[in-house]
Amino acid sequence: MTQSILPIDQQWMRHALALAAQGKGLVEPNPMVGCVIVRDGKPLAEGFHQRFGGPHAERQALAALPADCDPAGATWYVTLEPCCHTGKTPPCSDAVIAARPKRVVIAAVDPFSEVAGRGIDQIRGAGIDVEVGVCEAEANRLNAPFIKRVRQQKPWVIAKWAMTLDGKIATYSGNSQWISGESSRRRVHEVRGQVDAIATGIGSVLADDPTLTARPPGPRTAVRIVMDDKAELPLDSKLLKTRDAAAVYAVVRGDAPQQRVDALRQAGVGLIVNESGTRTGGVDQLLNWCHDQGMSNLLLEAGAGAMASFFEADAIDEYHVYIAPKLIGGSAAPGPLGGIGLSQIAQSPQLEPLQVESIDGDLFVTTRRVSRG
Amino acid sequence: MTQSILPIDQQWMRHALALAAQGKGLVEPNPMVGCVIVRDGKPLAEGFHQRFGGPHAERQALAALPADCDPAGATWYVTLEPCCHTGKTPPCSDAVIAARPKRVVIAAVDPFSEVAGRGIDQIRGAGIDVEVGVCEAEANRLNAPFIKRVRQQKPWVIAKWAMTLDGKIATYSGNSQWISGESSRRRVHEVRGQVDAIATGIGSVLADDPTLTARPPGPRTAVRIVMDDKAELPLDSKLLKTRDAAAVYAVVRGDAPQQRVDALRQAGVGLIVNESGTRTGGVDQLLNWCHDQGMSNLLLEAGAGAMASFFEADAIDEYHVYIAPKLIGGSAAPGPLGGIGLSQIAQSPQLEPLQVESIDGDLFVTTRRVSRG
Repeated sequence: MTQSILPIDQQWMRHALALAAQGKGLVEPNPMVGCVIVRDGKPLAEGFHQRFGGPHAERQALAALPADCDPAGATWYVTLEPCCHTGKTPPCSDAVIAARPKRVVIAAVDPFSEVAGRGIDQIRGAGIDVEVGVCEAEANRLNAPFIKRVRQQKPWVIAKWAMTLDGKIATYSGNSQWISGESSRRRVHEVRGQVDAIATGIGSVLADDPTLTARPPGPRTAVRIVMDDKAELPLDSKLLKTRDAAAVYAVVRGDAPQQRVDALRQAGVGLIVNESGTRTGGVDQLLNWCHDQGMSNLLLEAGAGAMASFFEADAIDEYHVYIAPKLIGGSAAPGPLGGIGLSQIAQSPQLEPLQVESIDGDLFVTTRRVSRG
Repeated sequence: MTQSILPIDQQWMRHALALAAQGKGLVEPNPMVGCVIVRDGKPLAEGFHQRFGGPHAERQALAALPADCDPAGATWYVTLEPCCHTGKTPPCSDAVIAARPKRVVIAAVDPFSEVAGRGIDQIRGAGIDVEVGVCEAEANRLNAPFIKRVRQQKPWVIAKWAMTLDGKIATYSGNSQWISGESSRRRVHEVRGQVDAIATGIGSVLADDPTLTARPPGPRTAVRIVMDDKAELPLDSKLLKTRDAAAVYAVVRGDAPQQRVDALRQAGVGLIVNESGTRTGGVDQLLNWCHDQGMSNLLLEAGAGAMASFFEADAIDEYHVYIAPKLIGGSAAPGPLGGIGLSQIAQSPQLEPLQVESIDGDLFVTTRRVSRG
């Protein structure tokens, strides 16, 4: 009874995916989901999951139907398998079935174990055609942080840096402001406003005294985390001065000076103690902690040292690299990833083809770690 | 009597510029020039300067006219002021005047002192409307190497490197093959086949033993030049083994070991002696030598050290940077520009907005030094 996938299915699904993406920064830790109800080639209604705790995309679409419209016999395009369990909202599979569609087209199966295919089974069980996998790769890409959270119990890590065309994040003397242009920096602030946490290294704090807040604020206020082995975070740093705007945490080693640790605690800094003592161990511990706090996304804005710790822990999922039309040279001027590094080019982690956008003369390059399957 | 510039003028001029560009690598040290003859909104004929010593664009266009076509009353679009002196070919201004155009539209004045505005004066003197400056910036951009040669008596220098997304040209252990993909490397070979000279440093020769030939060959066969202070170029290097394919030169210091210098001379290596003894002095000397040889373009494919010498001599006009979706890290892994480097970001040479093209997952980024006026 299953029909094959039609080009028109992909068109509607892409539209549903574009709707879903509007929930970015608002729905996490839920997935982004979009839904379009189509009959006779025309959309009857559409909706998307707009905020955590709010109605799901399917119910938003149903609520958007004109008062006199019975959607019976329509085709539904849903970017993620409708849920079949009662969470913050009643199951969507029931609502879909009650609307008597002719056909339901789904992009991706929900990786969440309580759903995982059972929503689809229920709808099929009601005698409705179900097509799964239309634009599946795009849907999984959109919700990669959600999928990682469910499967690996860790947040999605985005590493961001700005570098000159010759790959430097600062001059040999440490000067780094500004490499990228204003429009690029605006883009960074947008991302800051969509994530749950922003991590940096103590080196960057001591050198640049950053605030790491989103200006203007976005839909989400990220906590700020410093990889701070020896609890050196200055009490008069901008991070602490802006503690009312967003919480500050420090990842300190178990053997950090107790006096410093106490001072940070008293200053209201949350402490995450890295018992392993290794830098990659600290990264692991931080990511587990983030997951325990229900966080979906962590943005890493750090210098060469802390960045290398995350790189060596193979903890980075996505890269946001701003490249400016500047050149500074210098063998001792730092590049974005410090540490020892890999000895052979062939050992590089596999990355997706580079995507690029021009931003006022700068380039904004993005890529992702190819999934470890 | 001068009409103002019309949008249609720009359209035809862009077409003439596209024609001109087809001469790249074939016409140097002449400029690239294109010409279109238009009447009643239709092109009667077009032409471009196709090879050094061959007919100029204007004469090519005239020769392309159908046998029964008198071009009187037409509008001519020429990307560079028609020449008015007898060089390898008779003056074009005479030929243009004899064809009795109604109007001649010119993109840029010829910087060559024997022409410089006099071709325009002659045509205007014959009672023909002349419009100068349509798409002037694009025309000067296309012929920037020609303009530099005429004004500064030095070749145009293109610095090329391939780096990882974290700005490294090799791992800490020196491994560098391959960073960029096959399609990117094909592009490098195309450029090699268009330039007069390819320069590298002795460090790259000792580490990678490159051939530095264009494979497949292009319209031009570049000589190969090694910045080789101490005359260390190995006699069994691939450069010397392929000396029949293209000449090899070494830029050696005056105090290089005489025995080594003699060995290189005997092996057929051309010697350019850097009397200054400084690295930037060696660069200056090389560029003057290139000019004396009638060279227009030099491609620099070197490691961090030699690249820094050119950078410090402010000798680089254009950058070709291939960025691969790879990451290797390492504080000691080299970036493209070594040396001491600049101490402040604000000291960076001014570069044009970055242009970018995707090549099979890599990025090909180009920019130019903003002209020092």
